[in-house]
Amino acid sequence: MNDKRVFLTKHSPEYWRVTLNHPPLNIFGPKTIPQLSEIITAIETDKDLKVVVFDSAIDGFFMTHYDFLAKIEETTSLPPGPIGLQPLPDMLVRLGAGIVPGGGPMARLPRLMGRGRALEAFLGADDIPGDLAERYGYVNRSLPDAELDEFVEALANRIASFDKRAISETKRFVDVASLPPDYEIAPEWDVCLASIMRPAAQKRIGMLLEQGFHKPGDVETRLGYHVGQLGSVNGQPQDHPIERR
Amino acid sequence: MNDKRVFLTKHSPEYWRVTLNHPPLNIFGPKTIPQLSEIITAIETDKDLKVVVFDSAIDGFFMTHYDFLAKIEETTSLPPGPIGLQPLPDMLVRLGAGIVPGGGPMARLPRLMGRGRALEAFLGADDIPGDLAERYGYVNRSLPDAELDEFVEALANRIASFDKRAISETKRFVDVASLPPDYEIAPEWDVCLASIMRPAAQKRIGMLLEQGFHKPGDVETRLGYHVGQLGSVNGQPQDHPIERR
Amino acid sequence: MNDKRVFLTKHSPEYWRVTLNHPPLNIFGPKTIPQLSEIITAIETDKDLKVVVFDSAIDGFFMTHYDFLAKIEETTSLPPGPIGLQPLPDMLVRLGAGIVPGGGPMARLPRLMGRGRALEAFLGADDIPGDLAERYGYVNRSLPDAELDEFVEALANRIASFDKRAISETKRFVDVASLPPDYEIAPEWDVCLASIMRPAAQKRIGMLLEQGFHKPGDVETRLGYHVGQLGSVNGQPQDHPIERR
Repeated sequence: MNDKRVFLTKHSPEYWRVTLNHPPLNIFGPKTIPQLSEIITAIETDKDLKVVVFDSAIDGFFMTHYDFLAKIEETTSLPPGPIGLQPLPDMLVRLGAGIVPGGGPMARLPRLMGRGRALEAFLGADDIPGDLAERYGYVNRSLPDAELDEFVEALANRIASFDKRAISETKRFVDVASLPPDYEIAPEWDVCLASIMRPAAQKRIGMLLEQGFHKPGDVETRLGYHVGQLGSVNGQPQDHPIERR
Repeated sequence: MNDKRVFLTKHSPEYWRVTLNHPPLNIFGPKTIPQLSEIITAIETDKDLKVVVFDSAIDGFFMTHYDFLAKIEETTSLPPGPIGLQPLPDMLVRLGAGIVPGGGPMARLPRLMGRGRALEAFLGADDIPGDLAERYGYVNRSLPDAELDEFVEALANRIASFDKRAISETKRFVDVASLPPDYEIAPEWDVCLASIMRPAAQKRIGMLLEQGFHKPGDVETRLGYHVGQLGSVNGQPQDHPIERR
Repeated sequence: MNDKRVFLTKHSPEYWRVTLNHPPLNIFGPKTIPQLSEIITAIETDKDLKVVVFDSAIDGFFMTHYDFLAKIEETTSLPPGPIGLQPLPDMLVRLGAGIVPGGGPMARLPRLMGRGRALEAFLGADDIPGDLAERYGYVNRSLPDAELDEFVEALANRIASFDKRAISETKRFVDVASLPPDYEIAPEWDVCLASIMRPAAQKRIGMLLEQGFHKPGDVETRLGYHVGQLGSVNGQPQDHPIERR
């Protein structure tokens, strides 16, 4: 049985890549959480490693939403991670990057892009195109697809050429100045799980599944659009001019 | 007697609009503070409401500066708001958005746009065009006038279509991560009022009033420019290239 | 003997300029630290001063890196500054702006540009062109060289025309909301000095010096590029597409 979905490639002792390869959509759930968690432990304990690039083998998707087809018990029954939080937020805290809602974003995003833009991102719950993500400070930069690999490779090699101890010390100081405290992360996760279990959410997830959620196609590609169609005011379909700029 | 200046329109039980209509300039003072405060209380206590859009019925002005023609006692004698601050900062804290100086901006703006840009905004005390406001992170986005209404309507309807409890929980977490503490807000207000009472400020306000402050016209439309002309160094009028980019 | 490198010009009692003039590169070290520190004391204690502009008399360089040719003891033996930190971070804390690594940037930059971009700036350790610096929020704005002087002059005169007490009070509130605590600054400095003393860093500094570090020329002008060439992975020279956008 080959259930491996998260792959580690060591380009050099200093520079590793972690590739998410869970066709067709890189949906993230109880099967992939332990795999990624194991790699995070390897990353944390290696003595030579300086740079890790996370990428995806799935064209058009990096890490998609959580696996809503999995039983919630499969997630909640996973043992807590090394720092004592539930496995997903625990791992994301250790990674130092909030990737999916419920893994720490409410604590992180306002510190990254400011309160107003974070509120729009959370409450609008829409897809955010690359250029807007750069303007909002969500990502460092948005690059044309043809330039992205070369840019990442050059930056990764550059960092890998520097002194590991200086890298670690610098990151530790940046953590002190910018990481949210764990006590802001833990309750987010509890509330996220509880919200998924509520009947209203279950009904909306069910409607999305009927329309093609969790399968390649327009619902996954333009998830923001389709989420906006579910419970429209007055039963009217929503116009969707938000993507425009 | 019809002194109503702040109007509440319920587009749906979930989506309300608050319209400021205090011709000719939407100047904000002791008459409008209680009206808006009352609406804020309705917003805080309604069980269905999910989205509130604040807009203006006055072309070219949203909420202008404080009413410097009103006696300061009319403001200071207003009873404290529900959370114990003076009415204006109390209301703005409850609203969650710093609209006017003295209502919390020194605590809010550096968290929104960074220390350097906030200092430029405060100390430069100039008008900030929409595009610069977006680049600085002051506003989420600057849109062409022809696109603004449609964008706001779509976003408001989109948010109104989501689960109220999920909206509330998300906002509570964002508040923890991004709202300044009340103890930073209260002293700002005291210092703001004291600064308005000082003879130097009273003299400058008097000069502005002579030139057309509080009346429709160039002083209100380009207030930043005219403020820069008041006390120029060496008695020379100031060049004003700041708006240029 | 004329060792004066930092010059104070009083354009008016309210508006001063501090000009760094240490040819050929404005390298910053034990000779210039006491000169600048003395001026900072004058700035802190003057009763009329409202605006200080820091500029450089050296074309193409503002304040360059620390003087790696100076003995480290010359720096560490300087007496602590008025607030009790080592002289360089002490002065930079009093200035309220982190200019060079080791003087507070790890505490400051994440609060200015967000965690992700600050990490890229620190770990990439590359030159940052003006336009990228503006997009990242590192600088308020990037202006064409032909417009910069006029813009700065107008903004300085504008601020100088305002009430000194209002300026001071505003800055004090902004400090509360945005300055990192001193206890984050002090250990950065110790770790910075220790990192410079390590053999790996000394070797890299030595290689740079052989190639022209501390002298006018390509190494100083494109220091980011040359730092990336020092310890390349697999002994291969690094491509350098980072500047591109």
